[in-house]
Amino acid sequence: MIKAGIIGSTGYAGAELVRLLMGHKEVEIVWYGSRSYVDENYASIYRNMFELVDARCLDDNMEELCKRADVIFTATPQGFLASVVNEEMLSHTKIIDLSADFRIKDVNTYEEWYKIEHKSPQLIEEAVYGLCEINREDIKNARLLANPGCYPTCSTLSIYPLAKEGLIDMNTIIIDAKSGTSGAGRGAKVANLYCEVNENIKAYGVANHRHTPEIEEQLTYASGKEVKLNFTPHLVPMNRGILITAYANLTKDITEEEIREIYKKYYKDEYFVRVLNQGECPETRWVEGSNFVDVNIKVDKRTGRVIMMGAMDNLVKGAAGQAVQNMNLMFGLDEKEGLMQPPMFP
Amino acid sequence: MIKAGIIGSTGYAGAELVRLLMGHKEVEIVWYGSRSYVDENYASIYRNMFELVDARCLDDNMEELCKRADVIFTATPQGFLASVVNEEMLSHTKIIDLSADFRIKDVNTYEEWYKIEHKSPQLIEEAVYGLCEINREDIKNARLLANPGCYPTCSTLSIYPLAKEGLIDMNTIIIDAKSGTSGAGRGAKVANLYCEVNENIKAYGVANHRHTPEIEEQLTYASGKEVKLNFTPHLVPMNRGILITAYANLTKDITEEEIREIYKKYYKDEYFVRVLNQGECPETRWVEGSNFVDVNIKVDKRTGRVIMMGAMDNLVKGAAGQAVQNMNLMFGLDEKEGLMQPPMFP
Amino acid sequence: MIKAGIIGSTGYAGAELVRLLMGHKEVEIVWYGSRSYVDENYASIYRNMFELVDARCLDDNMEELCKRADVIFTATPQGFLASVVNEEMLSHTKIIDLSADFRIKDVNTYEEWYKIEHKSPQLIEEAVYGLCEINREDIKNARLLANPGCYPTCSTLSIYPLAKEGLIDMNTIIIDAKSGTSGAGRGAKVANLYCEVNENIKAYGVANHRHTPEIEEQLTYASGKEVKLNFTPHLVPMNRGILITAYANLTKDITEEEIREIYKKYYKDEYFVRVLNQGECPETRWVEGSNFVDVNIKVDKRTGRVIMMGAMDNLVKGAAGQAVQNMNLMFGLDEKEGLMQPPMFP
Amino acid sequence: MIKAGIIGSTGYAGAELVRLLMGHKEVEIVWYGSRSYVDENYASIYRNMFELVDARCLDDNMEELCKRADVIFTATPQGFLASVVNEEMLSHTKIIDLSADFRIKDVNTYEEWYKIEHKSPQLIEEAVYGLCEINREDIKNARLLANPGCYPTCSTLSIYPLAKEGLIDMNTIIIDAKSGTSGAGRGAKVANLYCEVNENIKAYGVANHRHTPEIEEQLTYASGKEVKLNFTPHLVPMNRGILITAYANLTKDITEEEIREIYKKYYKDEYFVRVLNQGECPETRWVEGSNFVDVNIKVDKRTGRVIMMGAMDNLVKGAAGQAVQNMNLMFGLDEKEGLMQPPMFP
Repeated sequence: MIKAGIIGSTGYAGAELVRLLMGHKEVEIVWYGSRSYVDENYASIYRNMFELVDARCLDDNMEELCKRADVIFTATPQGFLASVVNEEMLSHTKIIDLSADFRIKDVNTYEEWYKIEHKSPQLIEEAVYGLCEINREDIKNARLLANPGCYPTCSTLSIYPLAKEGLIDMNTIIIDAKSGTSGAGRGAKVANLYCEVNENIKAYGVANHRHTPEIEEQLTYASGKEVKLNFTPHLVPMNRGILITAYANLTKDITEEEIREIYKKYYKDEYFVRVLNQGECPETRWVEGSNFVDVNIKVDKRTGRVIMMGAMDNLVKGAAGQAVQNMNLMFGLDEKEGLMQPPMFP
Repeated sequence: MIKAGIIGSTGYAGAELVRLLMGHKEVEIVWYGSRSYVDENYASIYRNMFELVDARCLDDNMEELCKRADVIFTATPQGFLASVVNEEMLSHTKIIDLSADFRIKDVNTYEEWYKIEHKSPQLIEEAVYGLCEINREDIKNARLLANPGCYPTCSTLSIYPLAKEGLIDMNTIIIDAKSGTSGAGRGAKVANLYCEVNENIKAYGVANHRHTPEIEEQLTYASGKEVKLNFTPHLVPMNRGILITAYANLTKDITEEEIREIYKKYYKDEYFVRVLNQGECPETRWVEGSNFVDVNIKVDKRTGRVIMMGAMDNLVKGAAGQAVQNMNLMFGLDEKEGLMQPPMFP
Repeated sequence: MIKAGIIGSTGYAGAELVRLLMGHKEVEIVWYGSRSYVDENYASIYRNMFELVDARCLDDNMEELCKRADVIFTATPQGFLASVVNEEMLSHTKIIDLSADFRIKDVNTYEEWYKIEHKSPQLIEEAVYGLCEINREDIKNARLLANPGCYPTCSTLSIYPLAKEGLIDMNTIIIDAKSGTSGAGRGAKVANLYCEVNENIKAYGVANHRHTPEIEEQLTYASGKEVKLNFTPHLVPMNRGILITAYANLTKDITEEEIREIYKKYYKDEYFVRVLNQGECPETRWVEGSNFVDVNIKVDKRTGRVIMMGAMDNLVKGAAGQAVQNMNLMFGLDEKEGLMQPPMFP
Repeated sequence: MIKAGIIGSTGYAGAELVRLLMGHKEVEIVWYGSRSYVDENYASIYRNMFELVDARCLDDNMEELCKRADVIFTATPQGFLASVVNEEMLSHTKIIDLSADFRIKDVNTYEEWYKIEHKSPQLIEEAVYGLCEINREDIKNARLLANPGCYPTCSTLSIYPLAKEGLIDMNTIIIDAKSGTSGAGRGAKVANLYCEVNENIKAYGVANHRHTPEIEEQLTYASGKEVKLNFTPHLVPMNRGILITAYANLTKDITEEEIREIYKKYYKDEYFVRVLNQGECPETRWVEGSNFVDVNIKVDKRTGRVIMMGAMDNLVKGAAGQAVQNMNLMFGLDEKEGLMQPPMFP
C-alpha cells in the first residue's frame, strides 16, 4: 500500500482527495493535515466521513510527514510548499502540489501574477506540470509534480488540438470560463455566503486572474508561438463544475467535421477526455463527480471562428482527481485506478 | 455474472440503478427498458453515460426480458408490474419492484390510496417488503421484492427502535418530511420546472400522501399496535435528499442518552445506518450519493416528546441503492457490494 | 416627512428596511448605521442601491441619532438595544426594535433562552409586541415597539384563530418550520457558505430555538392556557421565505370548511393575511418580496388533527415589512403605505 | 387611465407585465389573455396575485381586444403577431410586441434565422425598435413597437458607446452571455426541469441563436459598419438575470478611464443605465426585480482588448420593464412611471 499524506485535507480539494483515495485500492491515508482543525476529528468536520474515517487532523509538519508517507498531496495556499520543500524531502517522498507554486516555469511571471516571492526557484525546473494527457511520460518520473489549475486543465484540453495543429490564430484566443462555487474554497467570506452567490452570476478577476499565465504557457508550448489571451472567469450558483467557452479565428478553411476528427484522433486513447457527438455542447452536469472532461467544438462560418467548449468537475479533474491520476502515473499504477466512478446525475 | 434488466431505466431512479450497477462487480445490465425512448441510444438521454454505456433503449417486454435476465428491476409507474407479472415470470427470474405495487399487504388499502385496481392480488402475500435492515432473512429467499418507498425507508428506520421498544405513544406520531426534487420524477410538468421549484418550499399531499399507509403498516408491525399518523411531505429546491423530522410523545421517563444507546444497539451491525453523535442533526448533504441513512434523536423534556430525525439520498437508499442492497441479499452476495462509495460533498 | 434612522442597516433585515422605506412616501432615511462599515459608502456594500442611496454608513450612536430621527429601527444583535435605551431616548423618538430584547414579557424567560442579562427590564412592560393583526390598537400608541421574530409571526398568525376559538388542544402543538438562508444573517460563517447550504436541508436548534418561548407566549395569550410546544426550524437552500407546518389535535368534531370560515372571519379585514382557497397549500414563492402571509389549514379526519400552514417572506412580514407596518400604525399613516408591492415571481 | 390588454399573460414575461402594471398609476389591465388557461382564474395560475387580480383568462382575440384597449402587449410566440396584426388594429390601438416579429428590418434575415414566413412584411418598416435609450424620439410616435430581445438589450447597451465612437474593431466582437432560466419560458419541457437545470451550466444555440442578427443590426446602426459577431448564450441555474461579457479589439490607444468617461457621458441622463465605479463588475443580483442595466468596462493592455460587461433582469429591462418604459414614452408619461422599485436583494 502506498502511504499518502494530505496537507490541507479540510479544504474542498483536500476533502475530495480523501473521498477519492478511500476508493483507491493501493492507497492508505496516513496523515490528515489541517492547520485550522488540528486535533479535531476529521469526521466531525466532514460528516460525510462519519464512521468511514477514524482519524484526527494533524498539523502541516512536512518534515515528519516525509518520514511516514510515500506521497504527499499539498492542497494549500500559494507559497506554502515553496517555502518548506527541499531536496531532502524529495529524496524520500514524492510531492503532488495542488497549489500554483511549481506550475509556471518563469519565476518572474509567477511572482508578478501571484504577488508572492518564490522561495524555492531552484526546484521549478525539475517540477513536472501534471496535465496527464499531454505530459504523461514526464509525469511517470516526477518527484515534484505541479498539479494544474482547474481553469487551465479545462482550457488547455479544450484548445490543445487546434493549437498544436496550427489551425487557430493564437493571438485571437478568448476564454470565457464559468465555475461552481467550490472553486472559491471553504474560507468564511461574506462574498461566498449562500445569499450572495445564489441567484447571481458575475465575472471576477477580469484581465488579471492568476490562471491566465498558466494557460498561456501551456498553449505556447502546444503552438510554438507566444500566446497572450483573454481569460475571464465567472462565478456560477452551483457547487461543482467548470465550463469553458473559448473563441479563436481559424487560420484556414476547415470544416467542423474535420476539426472534430482531429480532436477524436488526439484523444482516442484518452479515457478521461470525451469528444462529444457533433452538435452536442458540454454541460457540467454530465461530468459531476467524475474525472472526465467533455469537449466539443463548433465552427461559425459566418465569422470564421471556432468555438471550443469543455466541461469538467473542478474538484475532480480540476484538482483531486487529476492529482490521483498523476499519482497513479508516478507509481506505475493503472492511470484510472480509483477514478472509474461514472458521473452522478442528477 | 448476474444478468440484470431495468424497466424504466430513463427515469431518475432507473438511471441511478444504471450508475450503481456499473460499479457492481457481479452484475451486467442486459436490458435498458424505456417506453419513452425505445431505440434511442441510452447515452444520448443520460449523457453522463457517454462512452460508458453502449446500448439502445428497449421496450418493456417482460416476457422476453425474463428469458434473458436473472433479475429485473421495475422502476415503473404504479400498476405496471401488477398488470404484467405472473407465476411463470417469477419461476425464471427474480423481480425487484421499485413501484408501490407489492408494498402494502392489504389490497383494499392499496386500492384506496392509489386509486388503482390491483391486477395481481394473489402475489401480494408472497412479496417481501425489502427494508433490508428489518426483513433481511425474508429478503434472502424472495422471488418478488417490494422495494420500499423513499419516505417510508427514512421514516421507518428513524422511528423503528422506539416503536419496537414501546417507548413512544403510537397515536402521537407526526412525520414532517422534506425531499429534493428528483423524487418528483423526470416527467415534463410545469410544477417541476426550474423556476417553479427554485426559491420555494411547499407542502404537498397533506393528509393524503400515498406513502402514509406504507409507513403506518411498517410501524404497526414494529410496535404491535395499529398506527395512524400524520405524514406531510415538502418539496425542497435541491436535487437529492430526504430529511424526516418526526415527533412522538414518550411513554415513560427516559433520557436522551438512554434512547441513543437503544439506537446504537439496534443498528450496531447495520453498515448503512449511522447513528450520529449526541447533538448532531442529520443533514442530507452528508449522505448524498451514498446508501447511508443518518439518524439521531433529541428529547425535549419540556414537552415530553422525542424528535426523531433521519437523512438519506432518496435515489440511493430511497430507491436504487436499496434495490441493489436487496439484490445482493437475494443472490447471496455481500450486502454492500456496489454500494461502498462514500457520500460526495459538496 | 418622518425622519428614520436604522441601526444595523447593512444586515439583511436592515437592508430590506432601506429598500422598503425608499418606496415609502412619508419617510426619509437620515441615518444608515453600521458598526462594520462605518464611513463606507452604503451603495458600495449593497450595490443594488448604487445611484439610489447617496450616504455613508454611520456608527450606532443612539444618543445622537435620537436628536435627528423621529423613529429608529434597531436591526441589531440581541442585547444591544436593552443595553443603550433609556427614558430620555423614548421621550424624543419612537423605537422599533427588530431584535428580541423586548418581545418577551418575562425577563427570566428571556435571560434563560437568550443567555444574556437583560439591561433594561424596567422597559419590558411598556414595550408593545408588534404583531399588527393582533395588537393593532396598542401599537398605535407605542413608544417602544418589539417587532416580532420571523418564525413567531408566521406561526402565530397560522395558529391564532384556532387557539383563540379553543378548537385545538394547546398541549399538542408541533410547529415544523422551514426558512430561507437570509434568516441566518450576513455574518461570514463557514456554515452559511454557498456550498454548505446548497443541496442540503437540516434541522437546527431542535428543542431549544429562541423563538420557542415567544411563540408560546403569544399562543398563551390567544388561548388563555399555558402553552408548551415543539418548534423545529430547518434551513432551506433558498434566499427568502418561511414556511411553517403546524399540527394539533382538534378538541371537537369540526369540518375543514368550518375552520376555514373561522380563518376567513378572523382575517377578513386583514390585507396582509391571505386565507387561501380550499386545498391550496401556502408556498413561499407566492409571497416573495411582499408583506403577505398566506395561510391555510387541512383537517385529517383519520387522526383527528388539523394541519395549519403559513408562508411569508422572512425579510418582509418577518422583519422589515412588519416594522414598516408598525411604523405606519405608530404614526397614524395608512397601514399599507410602502408595502403594496405585489409578490415577485419567479 | 390607459386600458391595457396582455396577450400571453401567463408566460413569465406576461406575468411580469402584470406585476409591473399593477404598480403603474396610469394603467388598468382589461384583458388577461392566455391561450392555455382560457376561463381559468388568473390568480389560480399565478398565486402571487391571489386577492390582487380578480379576473379570468381570456383568449387571444385581437379584434375584440382592440376595441377595448388603448395598448396591447403581445408576449407571444414568434409569428403570432405578424399573422394577425393589420392596419385597422393599429388605427385603434398601440401595440407593443415582446416577440421578435418586428425587430429585424430585413425580412429575409428574419425568415432565415427564425425559420418562419413573415406574414406582415409591409409593417416592418413602420415598426419602431424599442430600445428606449437609443431610439427614444421615434418611440414616442410609434404605433407598432418592437420590444427588443433580452440579450440584444443587454448586449447593445453594453457595447453601444464604443461602437458609436468607432473605438472598437467591429469585426472582433465576441459576446458571451449568461441567462437565468426564466428566459426559457414556462413551457413543460424536460430540459427545463429543476433537476436538469440545477447544478449545471451549458451553452446553447452556439453560432445560431436567433438574437444574433438583432444584435448585429443594432451595432451596425451604431457603428455605421456591417457587423458579424459571435454570440453564445448560456443557461445558468438561477431564476432571473442576464449577464453579458463582450470582447473586442480596441482600434486606438485609449485608457480605461477615458472609455469610462465616454460611457458616463453617453448614459448621464439615462436613469436606467448605471455605469459602475472603476473596477466593479456588473452582477445580476444587484439589478434583480428592477429596470436597471449595470454596465462597466475593463481594458486589458496586454491584449489590446476591451471587456464590456452588462447585467440586467431579463424579465424587467429584458422584457416587461422595457415594454412599460416604451409604453410610457408612447403615451407621453414619465418614462420611469411604474419602474422605480429598487432592485431586491437578496
